Amino acid sequence: MAPSLELYEKATQNLPVKPNVTNVHGVPAVTDFQFESSDKHDRVLKVFRAFIADQCQQFNGGHPGSAMGMAAIGIALYKYVMKYSPSNCEYFNRDRFVLSNGHACLWQYLFMHLIGVKSMTVEQLKSYHSDKTDSICPGHPEIENEGVEVTTGPLGQGVANAVGLAMATKNLAATYNKPGFEVVNNMTWCMIGDACLQEGVGLEAVSLAGHWKLNNLCIIYDNNSITCDGTADVANTEDINAKMRATGWNVLEVLDGNSNVAAIANALIAARSSDRPTFINVRTTIGFGSLKAGDAKTHGAALGVDDVANIKKSFGLNPDEHFHIPKDVYDFFADAVERGKTYEADWSSTIQKYSQEHPELAAEFKLRVDGKMPDDWTKYIPSHDQLPTEPTSSRKSAGIVGNPLGEKMRNFLIGTADLTPSCNVAYNQKVDFQSPELRTACNLNGDYSGRYIHYGIREHAMCAISNGLAAFRKGTFLPVTSSFFMFYLYAAPAVRMAALQGLQQIHIATHDSIGTGEDGPTHQPIALPALYRAMPNTLYIRPCDSEEVAGAFITAINATETPTIISLSRQNLTQYPQHSSRDGVAKGAYVFVERDNFDVTLIGVGSEMGFTMETKELLEKDGVKARVVSFPCPRLFEQQSHEYKQSVLKPRSGKPTVVIEAYAANGWERYADASFSMRRFGKSLPSKAAYDYFGFKAARMAPKIKELVDEVKRDGIEVLRGDFRDLNGPLGVRFEH
Amino acid sequence: MAPSLELYEKATQNLPVKPNVTNVHGVPAVTDFQFESSDKHDRVLKVFRAFIADQCQQFNGGHPGSAMGMAAIGIALYKYVMKYSPSNCEYFNRDRFVLSNGHACLWQYLFMHLIGVKSMTVEQLKSYHSDKTDSICPGHPEIENEGVEVTTGPLGQGVANAVGLAMATKNLAATYNKPGFEVVNNMTWCMIGDACLQEGVGLEAVSLAGHWKLNNLCIIYDNNSITCDGTADVANTEDINAKMRATGWNVLEVLDGNSNVAAIANALIAARSSDRPTFINVRTTIGFGSLKAGDAKTHGAALGVDDVANIKKSFGLNPDEHFHIPKDVYDFFADAVERGKTYEADWSSTIQKYSQEHPELAAEFKLRVDGKMPDDWTKYIPSHDQLPTEPTSSRKSAGIVGNPLGEKMRNFLIGTADLTPSCNVAYNQKVDFQSPELRTACNLNGDYSGRYIHYGIREHAMCAISNGLAAFRKGTFLPVTSSFFMFYLYAAPAVRMAALQGLQQIHIATHDSIGTGEDGPTHQPIALPALYRAMPNTLYIRPCDSEEVAGAFITAINATETPTIISLSRQNLTQYPQHSSRDGVAKGAYVFVERDNFDVTLIGVGSEMGFTMETKELLEKDGVKARVVSFPCPRLFEQQSHEYKQSVLKPRSGKPTVVIEAYAANGWERYADASFSMRRFGKSLPSKAAYDYFGFKAARMAPKIKELVDEVKRDGIEVLRGDFRDLNGPLGVRFEH
Repeated sequence: MAPSLELYEKATQNLPVKPNVTNVHGVPAVTDFQFESSDKHDRVLKVFRAFIADQCQQFNGGHPGSAMGMAAIGIALYKYVMKYSPSNCEYFNRDRFVLSNGHACLWQYLFMHLIGVKSMTVEQLKSYHSDKTDSICPGHPEIENEGVEVTTGPLGQGVANAVGLAMATKNLAATYNKPGFEVVNNMTWCMIGDACLQEGVGLEAVSLAGHWKLNNLCIIYDNNSITCDGTADVANTEDINAKMRATGWNVLEVLDGNSNVAAIANALIAARSSDRPTFINVRTTIGFGSLKAGDAKTHGAALGVDDVANIKKSFGLNPDEHFHIPKDVYDFFADAVERGKTYEADWSSTIQKYSQEHPELAAEFKLRVDGKMPDDWTKYIPSHDQLPTEPTSSRKSAGIVGNPLGEKMRNFLIGTADLTPSCNVAYNQKVDFQSPELRTACNLNGDYSGRYIHYGIREHAMCAISNGLAAFRKGTFLPVTSSFFMFYLYAAPAVRMAALQGLQQIHIATHDSIGTGEDGPTHQPIALPALYRAMPNTLYIRPCDSEEVAGAFITAINATETPTIISLSRQNLTQYPQHSSRDGVAKGAYVFVERDNFDVTLIGVGSEMGFTMETKELLEKDGVKARVVSFPCPRLFEQQSHEYKQSVLKPRSGKPTVVIEAYAANGWERYADASFSMRRFGKSLPSKAAYDYFGFKAARMAPKIKELVDEVKRDGIEVLRGDFRDLNGPLGVRFEH
Repeated sequence: MAPSLELYEKATQNLPVKPNVTNVHGVPAVTDFQFESSDKHDRVLKVFRAFIADQCQQFNGGHPGSAMGMAAIGIALYKYVMKYSPSNCEYFNRDRFVLSNGHACLWQYLFMHLIGVKSMTVEQLKSYHSDKTDSICPGHPEIENEGVEVTTGPLGQGVANAVGLAMATKNLAATYNKPGFEVVNNMTWCMIGDACLQEGVGLEAVSLAGHWKLNNLCIIYDNNSITCDGTADVANTEDINAKMRATGWNVLEVLDGNSNVAAIANALIAARSSDRPTFINVRTTIGFGSLKAGDAKTHGAALGVDDVANIKKSFGLNPDEHFHIPKDVYDFFADAVERGKTYEADWSSTIQKYSQEHPELAAEFKLRVDGKMPDDWTKYIPSHDQLPTEPTSSRKSAGIVGNPLGEKMRNFLIGTADLTPSCNVAYNQKVDFQSPELRTACNLNGDYSGRYIHYGIREHAMCAISNGLAAFRKGTFLPVTSSFFMFYLYAAPAVRMAALQGLQQIHIATHDSIGTGEDGPTHQPIALPALYRAMPNTLYIRPCDSEEVAGAFITAINATETPTIISLSRQNLTQYPQHSSRDGVAKGAYVFVERDNFDVTLIGVGSEMGFTMETKELLEKDGVKARVVSFPCPRLFEQQSHEYKQSVLKPRSGKPTVVIEAYAANGWERYADASFSMRRFGKSLPSKAAYDYFGFKAARMAPKIKELVDEVKRDGIEVLRGDFRDLNGPLGVRFEH
């Protein structure tokens, strides 16, 4: 069937960029590179775009527009530039690819099929948007599925992940590569849409990539000028090329990104030899081929049966054939598998020789590739007797416990959002992760082998970049971040993505609770623990003293598929060497002080344990027998046996349980009948005065607990059913709600 | 006492910028402007800086460095450029000032004192970091205190707030100004440190300000090259001036920001006549005057007794005098109060004449100035009978209820983070908020009177800018935002700041729960409700049908000091005109279906009410008598009387209560004994299939509830004490934790 030129022209007229524009800006031509003919490219482009249209039409939904628009970029990447092995997607030295505009996932799925990734069958491609629970073609790419480096979807995250992946390569290369042995030298390619550089997390991340001169990173911008609201101009008219240049990037531009595969490939190849990260601004047309091409309507909805038929007609394809990939298109990509095997073989051979020349490094490198910690890490954790007994802030305890690990474990990459003096994660003889070029230019220390990362005041990018570090290969790196706990609200979307992907991380969150003091309510978290305690696959641990801090670190390191937040105090905390237990932390909660014939169980948590213990003492003086449970982590406690849980909380004792924590009470109702907690935002006061102001002092709490105990003695425990008591009352309620 | 030149030189040597450098880049000199002598400036600078040093030394803490470094900027602003009235800080047409680097608050407090703000006494200045609970000098500026426009502290927020304040002026001016009557024409000045343009929210906001050409906005960058970690170069080496130019800003630079008041003032004055927002890059020295000047050590700690004494000596001041402000320094600012009264009088006179010329507009304007909604807003809310009865998505219901208000209420500024087609907040005949210049340049509709705001894909800036809009004057604007609920996690730090400041807003959060379907786990919120339900002064309302949507809007509009999130479905929901109640929503929870001699109470919530009602039906068929409570908002329910609460939940009935909601259960333990909820992240499946996959179907839930009912009948309600049941069990747990 002959192509209908009329339909083709109709489909592509009035587009922002005419498809016959072939100019490229600043892209050097690569003369010694053999491209297939543009006719062949055109053929693949047509089949590819028609297939995408079919995929969305099948269940009348999904995101066809950008997947169709980016087709030529995909050919350039998968056919000519990217290093990968379809028969072993996990090949260690592969180029990493991140689809930051994750809604365009069909593009990635279809290329994976074409290059020969076995799991990605046509059957699977047809499961997109179906109700098949074993689909590997979800609405956004997911790390669990073969060939996907990171889960993307929330926009901007992928950009930061790509920065982390590129850092991982730089750090490994600086640590393990030796003259003649490039054991790690992969590129990271990141595909983005308009949103990724509108989102703050993306902007934070590109600033850092420019600063670090990550020349192994290339962002490919699918610049189709269209967002959900129509023309991207409706909310963005900045000069993105100039902005990226100002941020330290090499900027290239391809004006015909719809069909000029060679121009795109030339730009990608040029990125490989840049001294800075490269930003390729590729002009494309969303929904290319559709009658609605260039319109936002092609973004997030199927194109319609007629349009899909027209697309095929205009492309010279049979409109009655669906999901059709002719043999010549398969043939076009047929060399991918063998090429991949060659890459693998080359790398294996390099590693083999490297093992002979550098046996110790090679052994350590193998451990990293296998995703394993050195066996002896536990010996760096101080024993119970080595810990301080005088009052100590838990941020200081965390330094005592964690910094020897930081010094010794080369898989630890430890960063801070500009809070080195406050968060106390700088280990002995730290070396900064920096571009060596900045040594002279800015008089900075450090190089790419450095493992201490100054993220600047960019909490969100810090955690999203850490996701990239952790995803390079699970276990190869254990990223550590640090900031005030409050600012893990800025970072929350990235911490969530770590939890969703099963990426291990340790977040050192200091200045927790209202005890942070003078900085005031903006810096005092109230609701944030409720978020992290509810977040699946996330450990939020609040240790009460140095021993529990040790427990928190051990738990975090053992939680190999889980991000852990260790929540620490700014202020000094009483140490309880007779009561606290690192093993107890691993169980989430444990009996801190047992008491025969008790009248009440007090739950003490983290930085507020001191108030709990003081209240217990006062109650005892007043004849109320109180036992104390330390409760650093509800999530861990929930994993314990029913018997253990009952033994800790004794809910059937007929005695009330009261929790003392200077956060919102939400969630504690599962374990307690009453709380001293926070029902409003905090206040700027010195630490102790802030606690006083909100009623956290034994002299105030003990009488209220005694009242409760008396009430229960009088009326029975049933009186508390469905009547959780906020014992702080309406104290300090600032607004109506 | 003579100044010690030696000490002065010691204090200022090796600084990044020599204090005698007086160059300015791109700043036109203002020839007809009379500045005081540089000697007088110098005198004020010295007294000012010594006072700051005293303030931090008193309680040995706080942030002296930037407050001292920015002293000359303050003189330029408060003495020469800014329009304000110290005797009436609320004067409507005042310039707005935002201290985005809020830790430098001492700077603002001391200038407020010097210009004659009565409440800001020396006594108050001395209360900084004290335990005085009535201090108006908290560690960061707070909106409750006279003369503070917005609460700042979390970095980057202030930049976005300032963009909102500048938009507010533009919108009011375009709406109410008439030839000869500039009833609103104020500038917005925003002071920032290094962090504010590292944080993503700041970067998002400046992109928008450049796009909107907000030439009434000026950012003053205290560029002291120092952050907590030392030189700012450690994490940032981009060309900020080029970046801001690429983003559409007018860029000016002052090289000696430590002492050249006239140069700074010239730059500020130039900003007033720019056609774009202005960015003034002012080079300063942190801790200017201290022996540690130019060092990060001056950022967040007192300077030490010796250094404070040295500062005074080097400045020719008496080291034994503390908190000393000589008369000549007061005299320097003595004209501020009168000048302010003149501004006020001029404005009042303008308004008076305007009322005569434009009585209707003036009446409406007065209502806006008084922060009042038009009385008749309730008439635009559809009555019960006007609402759909066929299955309807609640995002659609929200359009039916809210869009007539959007059309009619000129105080509503309604925005979206690029989700116009999905969130359905575009009202009839909407006019976009745009720079009129973009009509021809980019073929855009809209102008500054427009009230529909395309924020781009910038959820965080959207909400932080909304805080600025709401803070212009409480009640003058009611900002509405919209996005998918999941992406209110990106925006959470800004929503929190709204709650903290008592700023009214309505957030239209669509695509809630796992019902959002195919987009998969990245787009399906699980833990987010736990955050917003725990957040003080925040209403998170999940309506179950159109009637409850009406209730949610009424509640949100009546909550004049509170942000409200209305959480809405993508998928169609069964309507319950016989059961649902807008008045019930206002109470947080209410009896949806009563039942004599019931066996169990089911709590249905928002988009999952349908499953609850279907389960009730199935239980009845199986002989289990179930009543149903609709529970759109726990926060509102908590405000009800004990009696009301008992009447709704009947916790003393001896019968169990089960909540059905596809979120983490955290928090429901207060009201329920068991839940069908989510213990892991979601899955990419069509809406119904996703619910099925996680067990949300009557046929699965009813038998499990029957088991529970039978158990309680057999063993008594006591069996559930301290044993909250996750009735979904371990279904679909993906990771260990």
